[in-house]
Amino acid sequence: MHGPRPTLEAVAAHAGVSRATVSRVVNGGAGVRKSLRDRVQASVAELGYVPNSAARSLVTRRTGAVAVVIAEPETRVFSDPFFAQQLRGISRELAARDTQLLLMLLEGRTDYDRIGRYLAGGHVDGALMFSLHRDDPLPSMANASGLPTVFGGRPGWPGAEDDPDLLYVDTDNRGGARQAVEHLRRRGRRRIAVITGPLDQTSALDRLDGYLDALGLTEPDPALIAHGDFTAEGGERAMAELLDRSPGLDAVFAGNDLTATGALRTLRARGLRVPQDVAVVGYDDLEQAAWAEPALTTVRQDIQGMGQMMAELLLQRLGLADASGGGRPAPVVTPARLVVRASS
Amino acid sequence: MHGPRPTLEAVAAHAGVSRATVSRVVNGGAGVRKSLRDRVQASVAELGYVPNSAARSLVTRRTGAVAVVIAEPETRVFSDPFFAQQLRGISRELAARDTQLLLMLLEGRTDYDRIGRYLAGGHVDGALMFSLHRDDPLPSMANASGLPTVFGGRPGWPGAEDDPDLLYVDTDNRGGARQAVEHLRRRGRRRIAVITGPLDQTSALDRLDGYLDALGLTEPDPALIAHGDFTAEGGERAMAELLDRSPGLDAVFAGNDLTATGALRTLRARGLRVPQDVAVVGYDDLEQAAWAEPALTTVRQDIQGMGQMMAELLLQRLGLADASGGGRPAPVVTPARLVVRASS
Repeated sequence: MHGPRPTLEAVAAHAGVSRATVSRVVNGGAGVRKSLRDRVQASVAELGYVPNSAARSLVTRRTGAVAVVIAEPETRVFSDPFFAQQLRGISRELAARDTQLLLMLLEGRTDYDRIGRYLAGGHVDGALMFSLHRDDPLPSMANASGLPTVFGGRPGWPGAEDDPDLLYVDTDNRGGARQAVEHLRRRGRRRIAVITGPLDQTSALDRLDGYLDALGLTEPDPALIAHGDFTAEGGERAMAELLDRSPGLDAVFAGNDLTATGALRTLRARGLRVPQDVAVVGYDDLEQAAWAEPALTTVRQDIQGMGQMMAELLLQRLGLADASGGGRPAPVVTPARLVVRASS
Repeated sequence: MHGPRPTLEAVAAHAGVSRATVSRVVNGGAGVRKSLRDRVQASVAELGYVPNSAARSLVTRRTGAVAVVIAEPETRVFSDPFFAQQLRGISRELAARDTQLLLMLLEGRTDYDRIGRYLAGGHVDGALMFSLHRDDPLPSMANASGLPTVFGGRPGWPGAEDDPDLLYVDTDNRGGARQAVEHLRRRGRRRIAVITGPLDQTSALDRLDGYLDALGLTEPDPALIAHGDFTAEGGERAMAELLDRSPGLDAVFAGNDLTATGALRTLRARGLRVPQDVAVVGYDDLEQAAWAEPALTTVRQDIQGMGQMMAELLLQRLGLADASGGGRPAPVVTPARLVVRASS
């Protein structure tokens, strides 16, 4: 099916010029007479020659592609719509600059080595990384690769805060969580439990801090906290733990919307009414939040917009877009906003 | 944050040898004295030098990566679990051969140009393409790129059948559909409708042929056919059309499981009981099929296994795996099997 790809040599022979001349024309044509340039371009067109980017990237040092690495097993990437929305934002922004998104799928720790080699290998112009956990090797791999990198979510590793070049896009997780729990208090709830996300992620830590802020606490009440993992199954399990431990709770702030849908399932199974017996608030405002039974009160963050901003920051760092105000690219933290529905 | 990456020149200077010597050592060390080789390798290790793959691929002509292109907008890729399962199979097989899966996301027609350039540019060793529609430019792009390519699903473009080098993995869609409709007939159903998939895809065409086979027809009854698009929304709409046109129908064979869940929604909304009033059969056996209310009778295909086989065929064509029986790699068609549940 596949004929051989025409080579630089074939173009040179066809045009009756040297390889070096073809190479110069293909890479911009500087220092080549117009008549020669036209002749080479005609041969390129006639033979359907496509310059080999591996060769060309040695000259231009550009591949036209950006890698996206999500530090989660692919099963989660495909089951949590958060990732699809963020990818949509990234993909649109990159496409607008004629840059290709390459999603590098991974399943576990052993895949990081191979990804690290690929990133270090000059195949992409930059990288976007998200859903980092505290001990992920990705940031050090990015560092070793020398690739311009933008992170999704506030980086949590030691020293990150002091790095003036670090670029990331985050949302105001702490403020969003505070709004959610203040809302529950205003509705008269007194025993407000929390289901956390994985506490090796800054988003989960910041949401827990916002919960504590709103209750004026520095430490959570051990009877009213359970640990989830940002999945529905985790929420289901954590809600059961909380009800076993504190049957009198009257509200729960869930780490994200998937966690909240799991919590709703457990409440239904135990015959508890939402919101009459227990009010539930989620986080993210995924489409599922509006469809849930009852429709879920949640904290909206502009997930697709955050993806778009990550891509935009990377393009700025690559010199393919201007930083706003003409300054240097800088981290972005977007606002979070409570959306009140039937569950609270 | 990112220090400059050590260059070949830096390694040469550190080891006190020429660039050419470093290059030879990095690319296997042929023709370099052991003492020199050791010295260069020590410098490589000390400086943390990673050979630039763009440069190296000029020598080895290998990038260690395989592109996956799904001819659907990313919103569908992320909402139909079929794709996630197929990708899982591909990713596992490639990872086992230390090859990286690069998923190239696209949104529409305008993205094909950029993807074509990337594929033709020497960035990947091969490509896997699936969910092709009749007029997709992807096959001709693959051809122009000179890349070894394996297709998911039987290719439907003119001349495809006569190409002895064409590699694809398909499932027995026609046989599977025949089983589904024969089952409905055995259960005494007499007015069996069909909701097709997009008829510019061979999978949808083959399933329609299997439906006709089982009913002994050459043309569908216009009152009992409606067109879907392999989505739940499409199934919902098509089921409504069918009921408006043929209120007496007693069964429906849906193009895939998502279509069937949409059909179930419409039947419920119209107050019809499944299977008492209308029996429903889907296709794919996604996880959702077993959870549906009522649980869905469907045709099981080994989706993850098909992904795995696509990757395996590509690795064979790349000379990285042996073809079974030691022969040339050849297309694979996997069996389909009816799974009877409560909906029929």
